[in-house]
Amino acid sequence: MLKRWLVGNPLKTSQAAHQRLTKLVALAVFSSDALSSVAYATEEILLVLILAGAAALALSIPISIAIVLLLIILTVSYRQIIYAYPEGGGAYIVAKSNIGTWAGLVAAAALIIDYVLTVAVSTAAGIAAVTSAFPALFPHREALCLMTIVMVAVMNLRGVRESGRIFAIPTYLFIGSFLIMLGAGLVQLYAGQPPTISPPLDKAAVEGISMFLILRAFSSGCTALTGIEVISNGVSAFKKPEPHNAAVTMLGMAAILGVLFVGTSVLALQNGVIPKEDETVVSQIARLTFGEGMMYFIIQAATMAILILAANSAFAGFPRLASLLARDGYMPHQMAEMGDRLVFSNGIIILGGFSAFLILVFRGDTHALIPLYAVGVFLSFTLSQAGMVRRWLVQKGPHWRKKLVVNGIGALATATATVIISSTKFIHGAWIVIILLPLLMMMFRAIHSHYVTVTQEIALTRDTRPPRPRRNLIIIPIGAVNKAVIRAVDYARSRGGDVRALLVDVNPEETALVEMKWAQWGCGVPLLVIPSPYRSVLGSLMDYIEEQLEKDPECWITVVLPEILPAQWWQNVLHGQRALLLKGALLFKDRVVVTDVPYHMKR
Amino acid sequence: MLKRWLVGNPLKTSQAAHQRLTKLVALAVFSSDALSSVAYATEEILLVLILAGAAALALSIPISIAIVLLLIILTVSYRQIIYAYPEGGGAYIVAKSNIGTWAGLVAAAALIIDYVLTVAVSTAAGIAAVTSAFPALFPHREALCLMTIVMVAVMNLRGVRESGRIFAIPTYLFIGSFLIMLGAGLVQLYAGQPPTISPPLDKAAVEGISMFLILRAFSSGCTALTGIEVISNGVSAFKKPEPHNAAVTMLGMAAILGVLFVGTSVLALQNGVIPKEDETVVSQIARLTFGEGMMYFIIQAATMAILILAANSAFAGFPRLASLLARDGYMPHQMAEMGDRLVFSNGIIILGGFSAFLILVFRGDTHALIPLYAVGVFLSFTLSQAGMVRRWLVQKGPHWRKKLVVNGIGALATATATVIISSTKFIHGAWIVIILLPLLMMMFRAIHSHYVTVTQEIALTRDTRPPRPRRNLIIIPIGAVNKAVIRAVDYARSRGGDVRALLVDVNPEETALVEMKWAQWGCGVPLLVIPSPYRSVLGSLMDYIEEQLEKDPECWITVVLPEILPAQWWQNVLHGQRALLLKGALLFKDRVVVTDVPYHMKR
Repeated sequence: MLKRWLVGNPLKTSQAAHQRLTKLVALAVFSSDALSSVAYATEEILLVLILAGAAALALSIPISIAIVLLLIILTVSYRQIIYAYPEGGGAYIVAKSNIGTWAGLVAAAALIIDYVLTVAVSTAAGIAAVTSAFPALFPHREALCLMTIVMVAVMNLRGVRESGRIFAIPTYLFIGSFLIMLGAGLVQLYAGQPPTISPPLDKAAVEGISMFLILRAFSSGCTALTGIEVISNGVSAFKKPEPHNAAVTMLGMAAILGVLFVGTSVLALQNGVIPKEDETVVSQIARLTFGEGMMYFIIQAATMAILILAANSAFAGFPRLASLLARDGYMPHQMAEMGDRLVFSNGIIILGGFSAFLILVFRGDTHALIPLYAVGVFLSFTLSQAGMVRRWLVQKGPHWRKKLVVNGIGALATATATVIISSTKFIHGAWIVIILLPLLMMMFRAIHSHYVTVTQEIALTRDTRPPRPRRNLIIIPIGAVNKAVIRAVDYARSRGGDVRALLVDVNPEETALVEMKWAQWGCGVPLLVIPSPYRSVLGSLMDYIEEQLEKDPECWITVVLPEILPAQWWQNVLHGQRALLLKGALLFKDRVVVTDVPYHMKR
Repeated sequence: MLKRWLVGNPLKTSQAAHQRLTKLVALAVFSSDALSSVAYATEEILLVLILAGAAALALSIPISIAIVLLLIILTVSYRQIIYAYPEGGGAYIVAKSNIGTWAGLVAAAALIIDYVLTVAVSTAAGIAAVTSAFPALFPHREALCLMTIVMVAVMNLRGVRESGRIFAIPTYLFIGSFLIMLGAGLVQLYAGQPPTISPPLDKAAVEGISMFLILRAFSSGCTALTGIEVISNGVSAFKKPEPHNAAVTMLGMAAILGVLFVGTSVLALQNGVIPKEDETVVSQIARLTFGEGMMYFIIQAATMAILILAANSAFAGFPRLASLLARDGYMPHQMAEMGDRLVFSNGIIILGGFSAFLILVFRGDTHALIPLYAVGVFLSFTLSQAGMVRRWLVQKGPHWRKKLVVNGIGALATATATVIISSTKFIHGAWIVIILLPLLMMMFRAIHSHYVTVTQEIALTRDTRPPRPRRNLIIIPIGAVNKAVIRAVDYARSRGGDVRALLVDVNPEETALVEMKWAQWGCGVPLLVIPSPYRSVLGSLMDYIEEQLEKDPECWITVVLPEILPAQWWQNVLHGQRALLLKGALLFKDRVVVTDVPYHMKR
């Protein structure tokens, strides 16, 4: 069956508790989003600083250190979320359960935007790694991005099993090759060859830089921290004791991220790397360190691979969030069903579609997408931390004062970062996110209120009475007499009741022919011929149906339509258009039910 | 009703013979396509000649004269088609009835391509007239083209009445203002002010030009002749005697076209106009003749208006051709129905979509589209003329030898032009058309053979026997008990037979609740609870249905689905996804019929 081929076999409910992950494998599974940002975060800082001249690039080091400080604060804060929510504590759940529904919905809206941007930014940066190595591909980067998104989406539609090994190879290749590059680069710089350029921190030049530009560079660098919350969502996937193992893994991930990020920034500065349009900073560093040898291509390949993993992780995260929202009635109900893998396909297609749209609008350019990225992430960080602060204030419990201080610092730091990011990046694209957030929340609200209305309207109350039996008039509109029509007549007759065939008299000769054939094959069902002064078959049918509805204001009318189902899918456009028009016209008639009786073509 | 608002009231069959057109009005109605090509034909000739240097531009005059010669041949030949086919003789009909089906289909494929290109080229040229007058709009020409196509398509979807007056104003404004421009220009040139540049025919320079380039310029200029066949399709719209009036109108149109075209070419040459990217040749002539005054803007506005009329004419012609093809079974049947205006909307949307696609691919650039244009037109000319040659050979009749010679010359001339155009324009775009032609013909063939197969398969033969009565098992899958479900139960019960409600046991608590409610509101219909080890509601339902089908290999199974119809259209995405999956899974089960029972939401 088509579906089985697409999505694989269903899992028994009892199989749901799948194998737990060791710390090493979990690190690979959960850290691609966070670690992959090393591929572009340094570059984004440099791109802002270069606006104030080459001397200002030296500021990238203090800015990187500030971001690592923020990383430490976040890691310690998220540790507490891991212990408090061993079943998984995403921003939506933490904000909703501790602050309230509105906070949860803000977080959810921010996360949805975040998932779309993770796919778009990671794909664009991954393709930038490819086009840096093969400049001939640079003009085709948009097409390459779209192909990548389609590929990842199709893989997810087919249902990639989250096998640890698939994730482990590129992640550890990335970590390993980057550590080698950092080591080799630092050795070259301090124990032998002089660096190409080594600008000292020129105080005079630096003082000329506005605080605004420095904060903007900091905001750009904050993209390095996207994805560090992922482990806190997946605590339940760890081996026992889950929270302890998750917390240790998170520490390890943060340490690796910090080293890779600061190391990259230092190497970029010491090598005098300046951002170029057609080559990434990482590619320039790798080229200066290794020349265009084997190692250079390994670095580029590992960078691309981990970025595609990061994009892939959003395809797992988005449907999970959507199902949480759907269960609470803020997204379409069908997204809530976990039992069948097929229901995730809506989410995958939506995510792929929106991120492909972003790639098209921003021409596959990482730098153009970055200003949109960090806003949503830091907003959800802030709401998570604020939720934890409320939690300690309300629940108290052992050491609650210490925990309150930790999450309080986290909330304060992330809130400050959110404000800095949204203000310094506002005109560069953050405004789009700030407009989208309330729109998404309005959508959640509209969906929720619709479901509430439906539930109320169809609820059975004490004064609802079972309906009395009613008459059912069955009408078969026909235009000719053939096997498909006879099949419909056979079906209609099998349920008994008042069955009539209806022929609209468009052409007297044809009508006579149909009447003759009907006498032979009509199974005794009466044939009514109705006139059509306007040549409109549809109009005459509608008139007849309305007349019957008026005659008996209680009765049901069933319209049985013979339908030809061709053997080839494309042939469907050659049939059934008239039936479609009739169905459209009957859709809003109460008490009228339309039934297609398919005739399956053999060829 | 939505449809009435969109397409207006239906016409009685007896109203079909609408008012006939006078020659003056008919000229306006039928000539926009032909006359509007004056706006770009000269420019296209110059654009090719300029490749050989400015001196070569002088060749535009002999080339224009050659094209006018071809125009005279075509006019005389089409006169004979008008008299031979007073009910309207398009290339499809003439080629099919005289040569054979395959020739008719080649002509039809060529005409379809022609219609799409008429819309694309006319729109692009019309917008070029606008951006010539307002250069600030030049960067937005793609968007302007798309907006124009959408506007014309929507007007046609709403059903513009072919009122003569609407066509008369822009057509006669165009003719009048162009004649004034030609007159003023010629007076300026020969009776006073010297022309800006007046290069004599420099023989030495011209001899250096390859014959190929001259033929290419000729091919470009042949676009001037697109649309001259339109009158021969619409003979029946003229006042009596139709053929005579149509023939006179065609002569008038050809004369005007010839004068405007040659006049424009002469003025362009004498004024030393050289094609520019951002201003049309006509705009340059008008600017040099009138300065940037009132008259300049009238010329530009009239040019734009007649080009949009030309695009509009394709929206009338394409559905008419499609309906002819559909009646013969080469296009989907629904396109054949003339009785209801709505059936034309498919054709309008298809035509608008493809021409918008061309505008996007060729960036709204007239020059890039032109090489695709004339091939199809001249191919259909050739087939028409060849068809007439066969006609005289077979039918003979009075003066058949003279008529044979006339159409023979026409066929020879257009065939030669077709070969010249396809070879000189091949690499510039004509190859696209040459690839598309056989693809379209394959499509016609595939559709035709499908309809033949269906007709044969569902035909009632002597050994077809009326079916014996069979049992009908009615199943209502439910997930809860509410008013929508009860409504479906009420409907199912109204037709009698074996009715059962089916509940898949996903959650034991919910199941117990549903069973309790069922006892009160179930109308006495039995409720079956089936287990679901895989949590897949769909799978369990399918298993049950398949089991029942096996049990009684004769019976029908009706699946009655309660369906919620929301009050707002967007709310539809919030419902019915599970029903959709079930319907999809049941689609290929013979003997299973699915019936939606709608519950109309009030809010």
